Amino acid sequence: MEESSKTLAAMTPKVTRAWYVACLSSELGKGKLLVRKLHGLPVVLFRETDGKAAALLDRCPHRNVPISCGSVVEGAAQCGYHGWRFRGDGECVELPGYEGAADHVARRATAYPVREQQGLVWVWTEPDVAPDTEPFRVPGADDPAYLTVVRPMPTPGSLHMVIENALDVPHTAFLHGGLFRTDRPDRKPIRAVVTRYHDRVECQFVGEARPSGLAARLLAPSGGELTHFDRFFLPSITQVEYRLGDDAHLLLHGCCTPVDDFETIVYAVVCIKTRLPRWMVKAVVEPVALKIFGQDRLILGMQKDTLHTFKEARFASTDLDVLGLHILRLMTRAARGDPPDVEAAPFVREVTMWV
Amino acid sequence: MEESSKTLAAMTPKVTRAWYVACLSSELGKGKLLVRKLHGLPVVLFRETDGKAAALLDRCPHRNVPISCGSVVEGAAQCGYHGWRFRGDGECVELPGYEGAADHVARRATAYPVREQQGLVWVWTEPDVAPDTEPFRVPGADDPAYLTVVRPMPTPGSLHMVIENALDVPHTAFLHGGLFRTDRPDRKPIRAVVTRYHDRVECQFVGEARPSGLAARLLAPSGGELTHFDRFFLPSITQVEYRLGDDAHLLLHGCCTPVDDFETIVYAVVCIKTRLPRWMVKAVVEPVALKIFGQDRLILGMQKDTLHTFKEARFASTDLDVLGLHILRLMTRAARGDPPDVEAAPFVREVTMWV
Amino acid sequence: MEESSKTLAAMTPKVTRAWYVACLSSELGKGKLLVRKLHGLPVVLFRETDGKAAALLDRCPHRNVPISCGSVVEGAAQCGYHGWRFRGDGECVELPGYEGAADHVARRATAYPVREQQGLVWVWTEPDVAPDTEPFRVPGADDPAYLTVVRPMPTPGSLHMVIENALDVPHTAFLHGGLFRTDRPDRKPIRAVVTRYHDRVECQFVGEARPSGLAARLLAPSGGELTHFDRFFLPSITQVEYRLGDDAHLLLHGCCTPVDDFETIVYAVVCIKTRLPRWMVKAVVEPVALKIFGQDRLILGMQKDTLHTFKEARFASTDLDVLGLHILRLMTRAARGDPPDVEAAPFVREVTMWV
Repeated sequence: MEESSKTLAAMTPKVTRAWYVACLSSELGKGKLLVRKLHGLPVVLFRETDGKAAALLDRCPHRNVPISCGSVVEGAAQCGYHGWRFRGDGECVELPGYEGAADHVARRATAYPVREQQGLVWVWTEPDVAPDTEPFRVPGADDPAYLTVVRPMPTPGSLHMVIENALDVPHTAFLHGGLFRTDRPDRKPIRAVVTRYHDRVECQFVGEARPSGLAARLLAPSGGELTHFDRFFLPSITQVEYRLGDDAHLLLHGCCTPVDDFETIVYAVVCIKTRLPRWMVKAVVEPVALKIFGQDRLILGMQKDTLHTFKEARFASTDLDVLGLHILRLMTRAARGDPPDVEAAPFVREVTMWV
Repeated sequence: MEESSKTLAAMTPKVTRAWYVACLSSELGKGKLLVRKLHGLPVVLFRETDGKAAALLDRCPHRNVPISCGSVVEGAAQCGYHGWRFRGDGECVELPGYEGAADHVARRATAYPVREQQGLVWVWTEPDVAPDTEPFRVPGADDPAYLTVVRPMPTPGSLHMVIENALDVPHTAFLHGGLFRTDRPDRKPIRAVVTRYHDRVECQFVGEARPSGLAARLLAPSGGELTHFDRFFLPSITQVEYRLGDDAHLLLHGCCTPVDDFETIVYAVVCIKTRLPRWMVKAVVEPVALKIFGQDRLILGMQKDTLHTFKEARFASTDLDVLGLHILRLMTRAARGDPPDVEAAPFVREVTMWV
Repeated sequence: MEESSKTLAAMTPKVTRAWYVACLSSELGKGKLLVRKLHGLPVVLFRETDGKAAALLDRCPHRNVPISCGSVVEGAAQCGYHGWRFRGDGECVELPGYEGAADHVARRATAYPVREQQGLVWVWTEPDVAPDTEPFRVPGADDPAYLTVVRPMPTPGSLHMVIENALDVPHTAFLHGGLFRTDRPDRKPIRAVVTRYHDRVECQFVGEARPSGLAARLLAPSGGELTHFDRFFLPSITQVEYRLGDDAHLLLHGCCTPVDDFETIVYAVVCIKTRLPRWMVKAVVEPVALKIFGQDRLILGMQKDTLHTFKEARFASTDLDVLGLHILRLMTRAARGDPPDVEAAPFVREVTMWV
């Protein structure tokens, strides 16, 4: 049993040397300026002439209007106030009316590294430096054996609150009662084995029966032995993996983007392999998933409001909170910029949970 | 003539070791979680199995969602996120999925003492301690000789602003001109005798004629000698008493609850003994009273907005402000926790007022 | 090329010993209490019995409700709460119910000097002192040879942001593209000669052809040599002057009033002398002017929002920003209360601009 009390400012570790999804590839049309917020700052996205995605801080260095008030001209972002024009690397390439050269270090827009893969546009939130990693590759998303559905889900709450919720098992019997798990008098004990590495933490649930709710019955109609892992990868990826023999494999990812300290967008990437026909999976699983997401959004919104009313977080954790504190620890270290202890043996812990 | 200038934070003494009305008995149905704000903090009210009213801080100690997002289960408040269940004394009695015992000091909800009397549910705003007093008993409210009407009136303004307004005579001729008193060229002098005790202050108005407005004419149609007292009782009770011989007796109480620093709920308890038939009193007095309340709400809202615009209160008081400063003095001492000087002789002062 | 970075608080110099337009004469009807905000403070305006305009801080010294909640009684402003009545010079002349004299220094309302001229009501924003200057007289506004149109234009942005925008030439080709100037490949160089005096700064544009947009073609259909000055007068007057031989003379004034740090009202006073019939000027010029104003309002609103998002201003200026920094310098000195260096030789500078 651990207790913790934090001011709101302290409860949201901000990992800035990291990749976050800024938008879907399909949202970033050519010739379009698209604004997204990351860590509270507006970023304007556009495609250069060769189609390469680019991201600039959405503030014109001249008079601080949003660059996005303008348009894309010759693959560069042109501010709508005085017509200053910026390349994807931030350089000012046009300054109408000015006799001298347009490019000058003080007139550069702030530029962010960008990667586009698997239909997602990732932005590295530390500007003007070379990233030292590559974005997370979503397993299953490229594999034609899987049905993949991608959907951005705006969610109230800090990155950590949203991630803890996404990987939390005990709330499913209450908040989502009947949809996924159900509170029952005949609960059985299972073992939850937590392993924390330098850049991720996972929990394996051993001895778990097929969940009793509707969604679970649909995905694995024939029952059987269940493998269940919940995983977190720095900086903000959640992965829930269910496997039912060779029949069914479910990978539910949340690529979580910090809009600001208390607003998150979960880019949900769901990959499903099952014997059910795809139309049936889509027709049945999607509404249930959306209902579950809706309930989570509601409770996270109430949690956020309560934290703001009290201006602090005062959490009483138990053994059932298997992942939340480990995730916070990884995020806090990464936010401080501590070098990850790659050599260290993983931390392992086992607890009992009645489900 | 006294002048005073205060920052907004300093102008609202916060008496926490005190009883305030949280709701009407009739609002607190069995099986229901009811949320009210006291001193800026949400409190969730419910009835235990024996019907006893209980009040908890509306923040689950586990993950800080409002307990009120859940439901009443077996006379306990069950949080809707993970199903933690709390008794009226705050103890956690159920922690679903957890192998150990549910009760633990760190998992207690914050509990407030509660009293229910005369149709009002009172909460002591210092949690987890035994109250050293009992709530105010409203004279007349239990007496069948009186017609009693109870009504919660949400009112903008700090507790002190609202209370001063409720007991202020001079504004009635202007703000409520025609309804109660009227501004006239032929005003007559009366004496206002203020007596301040250690826990209350009252003002007797001597030589006052029956007010000339509509409400007054209705209550005392035959005129006659008038007795008029305005009283304040710590922490937040106002009492206006009018007596017209043995014919008519009006007791207008405001049990004022600090929602937050600038929002108050006045639980108005009006007790009337008169020769008029009750239906007539209700039919005529109620609309006039509501109109008066509406005008007060409007002016108090404007006062509150102006205080916030200027970020300070800068009041120039005169002899006509007979009670406001005494009330503030009593509230400030009580907020500091000073022991009341029970032995001290009451402070008495007399001024002239033209009404 | 100059760069500047400022916190938002520092970016808005506040000149308080100054005249600003509070309202139009036509807005201040007799018997009416009119509220306007200046530098974030509400001011109530009314006419005394002789019709003279008066201005008081809109806060009753008694209990700090807005005086404007009341009415004008015998040429004085009467508060609606307790009926205290104030003359235009702030003196309390009536205190209903009070035995003593009403007037007392602590019961004075805060009064501002007022001047009414050319249909504008000017208020000196330092209360209770004698102004050491007179308000700006708008050239052309009294001259029957000119068509004069006056219109209050509420505009987002600090006084300085709005004034810089009003006197900025380069943005017209982009933000107002097609309406006034147009971005073209065949731009020609002109000279901009800036002269800064102790209380004003002007820029003469030498060698400018008639602007190519619609508004310009209408005002000067026969073309010809163009004289163009942009001028700023402390504390907040902008003047754009176009002259086309003896045919056409356009004086566009903005008497800018700081509502608060980031909200401005531009009292636009447009004086036009031309050979066109007046109905034609009004019919054609007004819609174009309103469209231009609308575009400016939009961009200034976005600039303001961006500044608030970033909580700072970080501007990269070039030679094309001919007046903005000089205006800021004059405003900053005046806000500090530095005595103007009347003897100093004017500062002169010349730059090239391609238009």
